[in-house]
Amino acid sequence: MKKIMLLLACLPLFVHAQKRPREMGIKIGVLPTGEMNAITDVAGVKVGQVTLIEGADVRTGVTAILPHDGNLFQQKVLAAMYIGNGFGKLAGYSQVEELGTMESPIVLTNTLNVPTAADAIIDWTLAQKGNENVRSVNPVVGETNDGFLNDIRGRHVRKEHVLNALAQAENGMVAEGNVGAGTGTVCFGWKGGIGTSSRKLPEKLGGYTVGVLVQTNFGGVLKVNGVPVGEELGSYAFKESLDKSSDGSCMIVVATNAPLDARNLKRLAKRAVMGLAQTGGIASNSSGDYVIAFSTVNRVMHEAPEPTFASNFLHNNFVSPLFLATIEATEEAIINSLFMAKTTEGTQGHKVEELPKDKVMEMMKKYGRVK
Amino acid sequence: MKKIMLLLACLPLFVHAQKRPREMGIKIGVLPTGEMNAITDVAGVKVGQVTLIEGADVRTGVTAILPHDGNLFQQKVLAAMYIGNGFGKLAGYSQVEELGTMESPIVLTNTLNVPTAADAIIDWTLAQKGNENVRSVNPVVGETNDGFLNDIRGRHVRKEHVLNALAQAENGMVAEGNVGAGTGTVCFGWKGGIGTSSRKLPEKLGGYTVGVLVQTNFGGVLKVNGVPVGEELGSYAFKESLDKSSDGSCMIVVATNAPLDARNLKRLAKRAVMGLAQTGGIASNSSGDYVIAFSTVNRVMHEAPEPTFASNFLHNNFVSPLFLATIEATEEAIINSLFMAKTTEGTQGHKVEELPKDKVMEMMKKYGRVK
Amino acid sequence: MKKIMLLLACLPLFVHAQKRPREMGIKIGVLPTGEMNAITDVAGVKVGQVTLIEGADVRTGVTAILPHDGNLFQQKVLAAMYIGNGFGKLAGYSQVEELGTMESPIVLTNTLNVPTAADAIIDWTLAQKGNENVRSVNPVVGETNDGFLNDIRGRHVRKEHVLNALAQAENGMVAEGNVGAGTGTVCFGWKGGIGTSSRKLPEKLGGYTVGVLVQTNFGGVLKVNGVPVGEELGSYAFKESLDKSSDGSCMIVVATNAPLDARNLKRLAKRAVMGLAQTGGIASNSSGDYVIAFSTVNRVMHEAPEPTFASNFLHNNFVSPLFLATIEATEEAIINSLFMAKTTEGTQGHKVEELPKDKVMEMMKKYGRVK
Amino acid sequence: MKKIMLLLACLPLFVHAQKRPREMGIKIGVLPTGEMNAITDVAGVKVGQVTLIEGADVRTGVTAILPHDGNLFQQKVLAAMYIGNGFGKLAGYSQVEELGTMESPIVLTNTLNVPTAADAIIDWTLAQKGNENVRSVNPVVGETNDGFLNDIRGRHVRKEHVLNALAQAENGMVAEGNVGAGTGTVCFGWKGGIGTSSRKLPEKLGGYTVGVLVQTNFGGVLKVNGVPVGEELGSYAFKESLDKSSDGSCMIVVATNAPLDARNLKRLAKRAVMGLAQTGGIASNSSGDYVIAFSTVNRVMHEAPEPTFASNFLHNNFVSPLFLATIEATEEAIINSLFMAKTTEGTQGHKVEELPKDKVMEMMKKYGRVK
Repeated sequence: MKKIMLLLACLPLFVHAQKRPREMGIKIGVLPTGEMNAITDVAGVKVGQVTLIEGADVRTGVTAILPHDGNLFQQKVLAAMYIGNGFGKLAGYSQVEELGTMESPIVLTNTLNVPTAADAIIDWTLAQKGNENVRSVNPVVGETNDGFLNDIRGRHVRKEHVLNALAQAENGMVAEGNVGAGTGTVCFGWKGGIGTSSRKLPEKLGGYTVGVLVQTNFGGVLKVNGVPVGEELGSYAFKESLDKSSDGSCMIVVATNAPLDARNLKRLAKRAVMGLAQTGGIASNSSGDYVIAFSTVNRVMHEAPEPTFASNFLHNNFVSPLFLATIEATEEAIINSLFMAKTTEGTQGHKVEELPKDKVMEMMKKYGRVK
Repeated sequence: MKKIMLLLACLPLFVHAQKRPREMGIKIGVLPTGEMNAITDVAGVKVGQVTLIEGADVRTGVTAILPHDGNLFQQKVLAAMYIGNGFGKLAGYSQVEELGTMESPIVLTNTLNVPTAADAIIDWTLAQKGNENVRSVNPVVGETNDGFLNDIRGRHVRKEHVLNALAQAENGMVAEGNVGAGTGTVCFGWKGGIGTSSRKLPEKLGGYTVGVLVQTNFGGVLKVNGVPVGEELGSYAFKESLDKSSDGSCMIVVATNAPLDARNLKRLAKRAVMGLAQTGGIASNSSGDYVIAFSTVNRVMHEAPEPTFASNFLHNNFVSPLFLATIEATEEAIINSLFMAKTTEGTQGHKVEELPKDKVMEMMKKYGRVK
Repeated sequence: MKKIMLLLACLPLFVHAQKRPREMGIKIGVLPTGEMNAITDVAGVKVGQVTLIEGADVRTGVTAILPHDGNLFQQKVLAAMYIGNGFGKLAGYSQVEELGTMESPIVLTNTLNVPTAADAIIDWTLAQKGNENVRSVNPVVGETNDGFLNDIRGRHVRKEHVLNALAQAENGMVAEGNVGAGTGTVCFGWKGGIGTSSRKLPEKLGGYTVGVLVQTNFGGVLKVNGVPVGEELGSYAFKESLDKSSDGSCMIVVATNAPLDARNLKRLAKRAVMGLAQTGGIASNSSGDYVIAFSTVNRVMHEAPEPTFASNFLHNNFVSPLFLATIEATEEAIINSLFMAKTTEGTQGHKVEELPKDKVMEMMKKYGRVK
Repeated sequence: MKKIMLLLACLPLFVHAQKRPREMGIKIGVLPTGEMNAITDVAGVKVGQVTLIEGADVRTGVTAILPHDGNLFQQKVLAAMYIGNGFGKLAGYSQVEELGTMESPIVLTNTLNVPTAADAIIDWTLAQKGNENVRSVNPVVGETNDGFLNDIRGRHVRKEHVLNALAQAENGMVAEGNVGAGTGTVCFGWKGGIGTSSRKLPEKLGGYTVGVLVQTNFGGVLKVNGVPVGEELGSYAFKESLDKSSDGSCMIVVATNAPLDARNLKRLAKRAVMGLAQTGGIASNSSGDYVIAFSTVNRVMHEAPEPTFASNFLHNNFVSPLFLATIEATEEAIINSLFMAKTTEGTQGHKVEELPKDKVMEMMKKYGRVK
């Protein structure tokens, strides 16, 4: 039996030894962040991660996002998805789109363990109190392909890892970088991972919070807050040939406490890809760029007590600031994932360097973006 | 360990004891059928089924459709999907839609075993000769909810069942009724199951073949070739109340040897729901009505030998007869599934009667549709 | 200057000389109709039509549907569209889909006069009291191609015809057959036109009304309430060759007083094509089959008084009866259009016969669908 | 009768007095431009513009793009559209999406003159040699709302203006800034207009050309090649309140000589919005952000000589460099439109300043993006 090292509580500390870009003076966007600058700034949202590192070959993991504390199946959240580029294996798309609701946590993992994670979500849901008669569950599982660093064909994520991630999910700060589903990912040729960020709109713009969490595994021509870092480092897509450096994927989860219906949540989801674009991502052919957006308010009961339900939705005319918030938080979450990741060696002797933060900070100065 | 009875080679014989509607004089549509009136009339298409019946509780199974004999991952087929109503858990949608290709067999099973089937397809694909370096697979798995007759929470389909279905897939006649993924399904309140049908266009209309296979588990107001059977039997949706009899789903697989690109395959897929409509289906709120259409010609190599590939596609102006063929074959496949199914008892003492064929045939006479 | 004969108030009487199928004993579906069996059974909905017949060449017109009596721009209705087959020139699609609201009446006309009608709707909207500062209008205009009977290249519909149709719009019974936008249309090879029908759900199913209006100009293999009329008459698509008899289009307008949001209105719209399917339509390559669905309740103010608006929407679990109502009303509206149309001669000496109602009624008897 | 000053041949000279950003050292992206850095670098593509300036009130016009020299209706181009945000009135969407072909030129104008332009395209198409029997035309017309500077309610564009734009269309350099459909537009609070750019892939990446033309009338938080110009100028969306400065729209036309099918053209179209994102656009609620992409190769004959047509399409694996090219060319085209536009006064005494190029160039230096 394989022994897999689970790095749980210890990891956040470890990861936090890295500094987030904003702490180093990189201020992305014009809107203020939430308190933690994390998806968990949206009240009630919890994140749990399990990191799998074993020997030379296993570099993968699980990141779980829970929209609220209650029974997610019985109290569904309004939700929508947008597909920037669909070369991916996300589970759960069509039902969310049809019904406008999500009834499961969101679990992120590697490409070939999507069924494992979906299976675990079904277990988890069926087992919950109040779900004794549930016979249909729509698990939402996203993925990116960590097969360069991780022995992905070995499918090392097991149900218990997913259940552990769900069990330990917490409010509060979210670990970033080589953690959870970001353990083995690669972004713009550098070590990617999990990143998160948030925006809190001023009261005059509604006062709502938007939080974003990303799993970064894609490429293009890296820009950090507009600075051409990829070009400066001499490392970007198609520099020499039709290389594969732009391949890979990005999973983006957008949470908000704004009272949006599914239609406007889909519009929010679409904007996340505009944030990704600002980092220089191109949504290449081989990319699976999926955005899942949900609102924590206006929950929909599984058993409708009455045919109609009263709700209080935001009028279209007031959604644009939320669009900007989503764009900014997505850009910053991606940049956070790069800054917080660490150089990693993995399967087949593959090694992926972390973004050379010192050099990048010099560039940021040269280009006038930090003092 | 549970003992599950696998009914493999023996089942087709058993099922064929029933007569297909066309043998009884029910002639649906104006176009001629293929030789077997089955999806396997499209040359190269193979079907394999595993039926799981055990004790009082297990009534489920697997139906696998293989588009061709070769390595499906290395020689992808052009494909598209259409979602009539998306309350379902189908796996594989977004990549097929993005790339216009399908790289896996199609496996149908029950709702809560979709991850199992997806996992099995990954196993199967990774294990194939020539796929040693494959690190990404997009399994296509459809489902309907057989939880009325089957102990669906028990998730009795295991990987080996799926692998068996794939292994035993054959050209030739396809078993219908209570078989494979149709073992525990219910349709219009009667026992549903697997059904298949085909149309072969006259040479003047192109000479192409369209084959359809369905897993029927939905409801509405049943019509058999236009005859109001549901009304005559006094059994149809919402007759007395907001009942659930119209719930459930229908999976529809459409195969053709016509040289359609992914765009026209999607149009074909859309027409299948028009065939479903002719049976009185309403694509109710709780229905997962998915259509997967593929063409067996113009295959796309995983490793493109050159940047461009020569192909010979059908011009838009010539696709309409294929639309009619799809509509007719879908209608007939659904009716076949009902006629070939047998009364079944299952979990919790639930029992679902088969369509009372004698009565129905009397109605067919009364309404002038058979002699 | 051309002299165009406008047949306005007189036409309904003329058209009503024909009998509607239901009066002749053809009872489509299981749900009860509204009082008039017309789209105008949805309270507040008004229809106005202008019929243009001149000399040998002009056989066209305008049909306008107004969702309510108020200022449509200032009090937008929730709406959605579904495209069965998109070979058509409908104006207004993307804004309705993006915002979930419709701010104009719906005008139907011929293919090459869509711009004329859109222009007229802009005139009409800008001129209304309260719209003095409006600088953006999204006109919704549908069309079918009446170019077989009508000199469509002459583009004989003028703005004033559209404005007249809007001005004379009324609650109450709607003229059917060769009237308004249906003046020159052809359906299943017979004279088509305008048709309408409605369903009123029993109280136990919600008590809501669904009304449908169609402009029929398409083909396939005609069925009347399940009876194979096309086959019996020896006239159907592809009988002898790859003929064009299935070409053309169908515009479908669905109104309801059920409190549906835009997402559920889109689902309703999708079901209308299932009603079309029951008549034997195939949504051929050249067909423009568009459905516009709107709800008369939960209006959205152009100037939102507050950021959020309270609303009371129907829960997903309660929409299925509305799906069935839409399917039935669409089928009946199409059949109505055929029964109410009269043999017409038009441009280039073309003549289109009306459906031979006597023969059809004989078939209905032979096939047991009328006494 | 109003006298409208048509500025045709003279305008390009006038506009060219401005310098394009690239001439001033602003180098956007990593890929080389085509020869003219314009959409007309795609061989065969022609652009014609008519600028309408009259008195204090008329500030509008027409920009026409012709995909090739031949009969556009008889030799359709493969095409697709993507809607970034659908608050707009673009004509022609659904047929292009359904059939994968475009049969008309693309005309851009103001919101309330879309019907005029569509009408003119119909005139133009019907009148062409070889189109004597054409009875159906799908005009493609895009728009943005120039109602701040232009008396848009006056609807000053007339058919002859559109026909003039079509008639004078030329290969060669394209006028930018306050010209054609960009005469009255506003972008990021500054004067916007028409912009164009192109990329020519190195041979190792396929050697294909991508050309983009934009009509800019939108907002957000302006960035010029990553430099936070909007913030530096103290002018950006929602700075003080829920202002309307981010409203408006962007029309984007993407041409390529790469042999893409409609599915991959749609993917290309999607990437254009990622280019828009890099300028700081947010696709606000009121924005109509439409992308129309077409390929000049693999034309589809209106009358198919045979049921199938041979074609040579680019394999998915080779499209990513075209994605990057589209993103870069779109970003640069937008920036070009801003740099080439001039301060304009219009209706109701409204005045919109041009981007203060001197200040911007200072910022570009400060931020290290020009020497």
